[in-house]
Amino acid sequence: MKTVSENRCFGGIQGVYTHSSNATGCDMTFGLFLPEEAQDGPVPVLWYLSGLTCTHENAMVKAGAQGWAAEQGIALIFPDTSPRGEGVADDEAYDLGQGAGFYVNATEAPWAPHFRMWDYIATDLPELVFDAFALDPERQAITGHSMGGHGALTLAMGLPGRFRSVSAFSPICHPTNGDWGRKQLSAYLGSDETKWAAHDATLTMRDKGLDIPLLIDTGSSDQFIDLLQPEALAEAVAARRIPATLRLQKGYDHSYFFVSSFMEDHVAFHAEALYA
Amino acid sequence: MKTVSENRCFGGIQGVYTHSSNATGCDMTFGLFLPEEAQDGPVPVLWYLSGLTCTHENAMVKAGAQGWAAEQGIALIFPDTSPRGEGVADDEAYDLGQGAGFYVNATEAPWAPHFRMWDYIATDLPELVFDAFALDPERQAITGHSMGGHGALTLAMGLPGRFRSVSAFSPICHPTNGDWGRKQLSAYLGSDETKWAAHDATLTMRDKGLDIPLLIDTGSSDQFIDLLQPEALAEAVAARRIPATLRLQKGYDHSYFFVSSFMEDHVAFHAEALYA
Repeated sequence: MKTVSENRCFGGIQGVYTHSSNATGCDMTFGLFLPEEAQDGPVPVLWYLSGLTCTHENAMVKAGAQGWAAEQGIALIFPDTSPRGEGVADDEAYDLGQGAGFYVNATEAPWAPHFRMWDYIATDLPELVFDAFALDPERQAITGHSMGGHGALTLAMGLPGRFRSVSAFSPICHPTNGDWGRKQLSAYLGSDETKWAAHDATLTMRDKGLDIPLLIDTGSSDQFIDLLQPEALAEAVAARRIPATLRLQKGYDHSYFFVSSFMEDHVAFHAEALYA
Repeated sequence: MKTVSENRCFGGIQGVYTHSSNATGCDMTFGLFLPEEAQDGPVPVLWYLSGLTCTHENAMVKAGAQGWAAEQGIALIFPDTSPRGEGVADDEAYDLGQGAGFYVNATEAPWAPHFRMWDYIATDLPELVFDAFALDPERQAITGHSMGGHGALTLAMGLPGRFRSVSAFSPICHPTNGDWGRKQLSAYLGSDETKWAAHDATLTMRDKGLDIPLLIDTGSSDQFIDLLQPEALAEAVAARRIPATLRLQKGYDHSYFFVSSFMEDHVAFHAEALYA
């Protein structure tokens, strides 16, 4: 692991690191905010998964999360959204290939060799960071934005017992049923739609439910709301009688101005579960 | 004036606008955060002047100021740092020309036609925004970062009565005596150093003092601290017996991770003056 940068931030350290990933078979970059409390021992962790076109950097500089995390003594991990570099497949479209890993393990050409973001987030990066930093693996929570909200929800449901709470900002809720999903799932996983189901929060919610606290915020003026389909997940949550807080926030759009506006709520929500 | 974008943000609106400026003779872009309270009448204003290489956008997305401004019911204005566009002089260096206006009215070729950022901030942009938005000209405060901290300090001292309080993050304190200053002041204002004095916070402090509250934060690990010379201004402030809070923040550098870490303090400091 190499240190790219470390900046003092809200009494802690905002670091950026690169490492060679076994999961993706390439160098990966991630951001890690360590609160001051990490000097004294392992602290709880909130994973933040980013959306289409983002790198590790977007949320790290625009989401305004560090101040609230510092207040709660929680670390933040900001992974990249895909493998990158020469020799890694890509596509001209903004929503496929590099910057658009969709948090799945690709099985199809040309994506299969590197596009294994599920394993990267579920196994590879945790092994690295829990070994290298003062982070408590027993106290993990996860959130994300848009494609990253999709990733947070599907990882939380797919790895029961891993996370104590899950939240999302404007997540892609039902990707098997929309243009933000069908295109990518067919490219990465092939045409057999039974293999897509584990990567659809609505289908997984219907099938398995969720046993940890859930908070979702979506802007009522989100320009992509028809692609996000919050109504599908809301129906599934209600049908399964899952305790959850699903909010539509009046007038907000899909931007980081929206994310930052509700970050305090999300960090406080996770802190309650992480310190329970 | 044209609207580039408007995003709901912390209950208010983060807007970006362009207009044709008489001062700079070109189109200028600025960001304006209006808190929810602006729907009911004019609100106080905090000007934020940015540093070298920045546009209107950097602080708007990275400083984390809107949440605190929303809490206090204060508007934020994020001007650009220089004229821009075809026909506007520039230089290959990052610290001269476009992105590096230094908040002066240039008198020298090739800068004189457009590089009039003092007038732009002091006269031109205020005329526009106080006419177009629900902002209270009687309640203005000013802050800035690095070159923008220099601008905030020199404008506050050069326009007595205009601002109720002034603060700065890692300001260039003594530009007539360092490489961040001598190069630009000689290029924009010529070799007669008597014309530079009004654009040096330390010299102006020694000469005129300041009669409004002053807060300055600088990181003790700022990689540019030798160019900033906080010690020169600190000496001048103390020598004039000016009430002020000058802080060196342990371990912080020059980045927006530093700025965002102390933004809450700065907004609260200005709110106290604006609502006094």
